[in-house]
Amino acid sequence: MFDDLATTRQRIHSGQTSAASVLEQCIAQAQTPRCAAAFVSTDFARARSAASPAAQGLPLAGLAVSIKDLFDVAGETTAAGSIVLKDAPPAARDCPAVERLRAAGAALIGRTHMVEFAFSGIGTNPHFATPPNVADTRVDRIPGGSSSGAAVSVGTGAAFIGLGSDTGGSIRIPAALNGLVGFKSTARLVPTEGALPLSITLDTVCAVTRSVADAVIAHEVLSVRKVATNTKPLSARRFAVVQTIMLDALDPSVAAAFTRSLRTLRDAGARIDEIVLTDINDVHALFVSGGFSGAESYAWHRHLLAQHAHLYDPRVAMRIRRGAAMLAYEYLDLHRARTDWIGRMSSALADFDAVLSPTVPIVAVPIADVAPAQGLDAAQDAARDAEFFRVNALLLRNTSVVNQLDGCAISIPCHEPGDTPVGLMIWHTALHDDAVLNIALQAESALRRER
Amino acid sequence: MFDDLATTRQRIHSGQTSAASVLEQCIAQAQTPRCAAAFVSTDFARARSAASPAAQGLPLAGLAVSIKDLFDVAGETTAAGSIVLKDAPPAARDCPAVERLRAAGAALIGRTHMVEFAFSGIGTNPHFATPPNVADTRVDRIPGGSSSGAAVSVGTGAAFIGLGSDTGGSIRIPAALNGLVGFKSTARLVPTEGALPLSITLDTVCAVTRSVADAVIAHEVLSVRKVATNTKPLSARRFAVVQTIMLDALDPSVAAAFTRSLRTLRDAGARIDEIVLTDINDVHALFVSGGFSGAESYAWHRHLLAQHAHLYDPRVAMRIRRGAAMLAYEYLDLHRARTDWIGRMSSALADFDAVLSPTVPIVAVPIADVAPAQGLDAAQDAARDAEFFRVNALLLRNTSVVNQLDGCAISIPCHEPGDTPVGLMIWHTALHDDAVLNIALQAESALRRER
Repeated sequence: MFDDLATTRQRIHSGQTSAASVLEQCIAQAQTPRCAAAFVSTDFARARSAASPAAQGLPLAGLAVSIKDLFDVAGETTAAGSIVLKDAPPAARDCPAVERLRAAGAALIGRTHMVEFAFSGIGTNPHFATPPNVADTRVDRIPGGSSSGAAVSVGTGAAFIGLGSDTGGSIRIPAALNGLVGFKSTARLVPTEGALPLSITLDTVCAVTRSVADAVIAHEVLSVRKVATNTKPLSARRFAVVQTIMLDALDPSVAAAFTRSLRTLRDAGARIDEIVLTDINDVHALFVSGGFSGAESYAWHRHLLAQHAHLYDPRVAMRIRRGAAMLAYEYLDLHRARTDWIGRMSSALADFDAVLSPTVPIVAVPIADVAPAQGLDAAQDAARDAEFFRVNALLLRNTSVVNQLDGCAISIPCHEPGDTPVGLMIWHTALHDDAVLNIALQAESALRRER
Repeated sequence: MFDDLATTRQRIHSGQTSAASVLEQCIAQAQTPRCAAAFVSTDFARARSAASPAAQGLPLAGLAVSIKDLFDVAGETTAAGSIVLKDAPPAARDCPAVERLRAAGAALIGRTHMVEFAFSGIGTNPHFATPPNVADTRVDRIPGGSSSGAAVSVGTGAAFIGLGSDTGGSIRIPAALNGLVGFKSTARLVPTEGALPLSITLDTVCAVTRSVADAVIAHEVLSVRKVATNTKPLSARRFAVVQTIMLDALDPSVAAAFTRSLRTLRDAGARIDEIVLTDINDVHALFVSGGFSGAESYAWHRHLLAQHAHLYDPRVAMRIRRGAAMLAYEYLDLHRARTDWIGRMSSALADFDAVLSPTVPIVAVPIADVAPAQGLDAAQDAARDAEFFRVNALLLRNTSVVNQLDGCAISIPCHEPGDTPVGLMIWHTALHDDAVLNIALQAESALRRER
């Protein structure tokens, strides 16, 4: 595992290395085959220009950051993993998130691959080779998505921060599957302007990092706010483990890692209550007729889709079209149902410092199991599609609860060294971001001691 | 004209009168026939209980305030001018606006009549007698709506502040037609919870008062903020008069009062540019298929309407039903079109301190011309409906531009004493509230000197 940003920054400050030297290592990594697979394009000259003396003292002074293909960067085309937009005019200006990273001194090393229009948690995209998961060099496994390249760029040492987005789990799923940290802040804290929308209701701009300390740094830059530190020890914390939905159909290795993590936290003195939370089942009502993402993506895509359907991934086009028939009052009902559900969930969770769940119930599957079935016969094709949607639904199941809740969540690694990565998700309702980050710092430290 | 709240408060502070005595005058007024017509119900005991020594020092200490039937007051049924909700359970708690008025010491004198579900600018309601306009005691003229009783309660001396709402002009139209002041703040500044919704996008909680100074007091209480005072004189101000749409089909008396007002402001040194603003025409696109109000009111009303259509005003039911067929993507398009239009309008108006327009292009018509045609034959009925919708469209035309713009606007009287009231609307885009209020203080003073 590569050093995280916090440690690297300390090494630079103490003179053990320089920002320029660290950047050259990142650039070298970016050119290795497994890492190059993460990038749509790189711009090492631009990255080097950020590692200037003027950047000293800035939080990301000259340190490498990758940008998901979803975001506007002045002079670059935002294709969002599609080919339908590959000849779109370049962005006139940086989106606010990129602007903030640049203002913090970040060296923008390149644009990362993603699932077409951010529409699945698997990480495959029929137009481009899938960047393989960083944790297994023997079998090419899925990287998770939709911020697939973001996670791979961070996991392979090309970037300290992978700017991404999370509408249903797109930061947390690849973080969990690659053994990284993914923090999905409360959506309203970072502007979404200049990020190609999937769901204007659920989209969150956020980042994948190597440690919780780095997640704090990235969040502070992206949200232009300070995270309040809290010294309350784990022994004074009360957590909930929601048994409803979140623990269904766990992979044995996920169940084992999750159980071991709970034991570690209990050993550190945390009180953990296993609770039945029937209200959580009502989340399903928010997905009917394609939910927010269906109607909202259809509104954005429909003219493009009408003209260029053949250039879309058929699995994505199918999901966008689900939003076509929703009526305005049904859409408004969905918002009312969500507000009501958030109220009930907030009451149920009010007495807990956070909730603990497996980020995803399974570990990364081989890419071959779910890749688009080009050149296969119709029956094989249908079987591959069915498997794709089955795995996708499993990957998104736990994470998407937090998006519907307008909440915040972090995924931190909780597997044993050498095992296939498993993520522990620490989550809560809206604006509990600082508490979630503080708890994650403690949990990460406790889990690392065990490993 | 009765003293305004600001003057009355000074008279109380200087010992010329007492809050209790002022309240008794309001209660006496509230029982005169023209004023009683404004109220659904009164509660003088409750009002008297607010004029206590404990209230001294509070901004509204013991002073009478009326509440539109749209708002939740603990223990009262919120019927919103309907009969379909007349047996609904009473509200469990005050809505935030009412809570803030009470916390400021207000004496809640009663609930005021309104147009059914706030659906027109005329002020008639088939279920209840229409409170006649306060400015003409010979002919019963429309009070304007939808906050009809709010304006009449303030104009006849029963209340200093009439709490109301403005979705398309519901505060400014009755203010203009009755010779009062109506300030529609930027929507987001006052919470809308506990106010029965017409359009969740456009609804604004605000008040009708007798003076601009009182509008400032009411706004400060309702928004829990201080209005910044600005001493820039009229001679340093630059105003726009938008010629497109806003000056079409003016009543001769409105044209004369508006022209005279511009001359007065120019004489005071203000620079006033008459501008053509073709972008304003695009507001029409925001009303297609019933616009925000159609879809949003249909979402709220549809179950009630399906069961009890016969209890609705047919003119209101017809307008709610227009929202039934809108698709979710059309609704989302409407939001995008609005955001785009606001951007263009904001650029066009950025160099001006405010825009000046007639609040409504006509003066109050006789109630008999537009009242529901009960007992008439079908042809007369249709003719009356046509006249109703023609007048309603004219009344709302100028004011609704500001709601679509997410802007703020104040209507102040600009007619000669004794003439039928005409309102001057001073308006701008979102969050220019303090500038608009400061300019209105100056304009009110300049126009009064002329009168």
